[in-house]
Amino acid sequence: MSLPPTEKRPGEVALSFDPARTADDARLRFIGRLRSPWSRGHCPKNLREAREVGGTFRIEIDESFRPGLAGLAVGQPVILLYWTGSSRRDLIVQSPAHRDGPTGVFALRSPARPNPIAVGVVRILAIDPVTGVLTVDALDAFDGTPLLDIKPWLTSVDVPPAQG
Amino acid sequence: MSLPPTEKRPGEVALSFDPARTADDARLRFIGRLRSPWSRGHCPKNLREAREVGGTFRIEIDESFRPGLAGLAVGQPVILLYWTGSSRRDLIVQSPAHRDGPTGVFALRSPARPNPIAVGVVRILAIDPVTGVLTVDALDAFDGTPLLDIKPWLTSVDVPPAQG
Repeated sequence: MSLPPTEKRPGEVALSFDPARTADDARLRFIGRLRSPWSRGHCPKNLREAREVGGTFRIEIDESFRPGLAGLAVGQPVILLYWTGSSRRDLIVQSPAHRDGPTGVFALRSPARPNPIAVGVVRILAIDPVTGVLTVDALDAFDGTPLLDIKPWLTSVDVPPAQG
Repeated sequence: MSLPPTEKRPGEVALSFDPARTADDARLRFIGRLRSPWSRGHCPKNLREAREVGGTFRIEIDESFRPGLAGLAVGQPVILLYWTGSSRRDLIVQSPAHRDGPTGVFALRSPARPNPIAVGVVRILAIDPVTGVLTVDALDAFDGTPLLDIKPWLTSVDVPPAQG
């Protein structure tokens, strides 16, 4: 694996350490993979753009974890957590092309972050519990991206209440 | 640290391996802690219940990561990712008290899951970028829970589109 590039855009700030090399507070187990038409560098910016472009979007769950799909229903919205760990993890302030100036990583949805876990809210179009394949309405990550978790999306907790 | 309990409720299914002991596909770095009135075993079931009970809810960001807060605004809704890793990770089918029967973990918001990462959508009430303290409208995890990430919550991608 090649080292992450160390180039920075104007205004960007890197941590003095690389979280990828010092991270050992907790460890993850990949439970499957995302299957999408996208390749590295040729990927929609977000799920809205992915829905506009369209395509076939599937999730393959590893065999051991397939019993965990019981209870999910076609039509249901779910939250996916997936690993965007091929991006660098030390850029704490970033200057994306679409922003006016440098912005903290926690105010951005950039895949490059200290813990590169992306959140995607998608709708289930089909489920095959035997082969562990879910078809969903969109994915914004490149083919082969590791999956960490699936959770039901719930209006009662996943939409912030109106400001008081 | 004590071993996780191995008791199961009727209908529950455990993996043949413990993801906590075999997980090494990716590694995390904690970036701060959640501060809440809740203790282990005395915690609201979800964010809606936490809002109803009320209290003071803060997030403490470790010093290195504080530059990443630049660009977040008071009033803004954000997604928190936090680590619920004190729960066991092998229960792939669970029988929570509030459900009629055994249900796959991916159809539940249980903290006990193969990769114990919780998603919480909260609103920022105050930010102190120097001390790295954010005050938010609610938290549903016990005091001291490790924080993994903060992301802006966006209606355009974080609310599923209506069914076609």
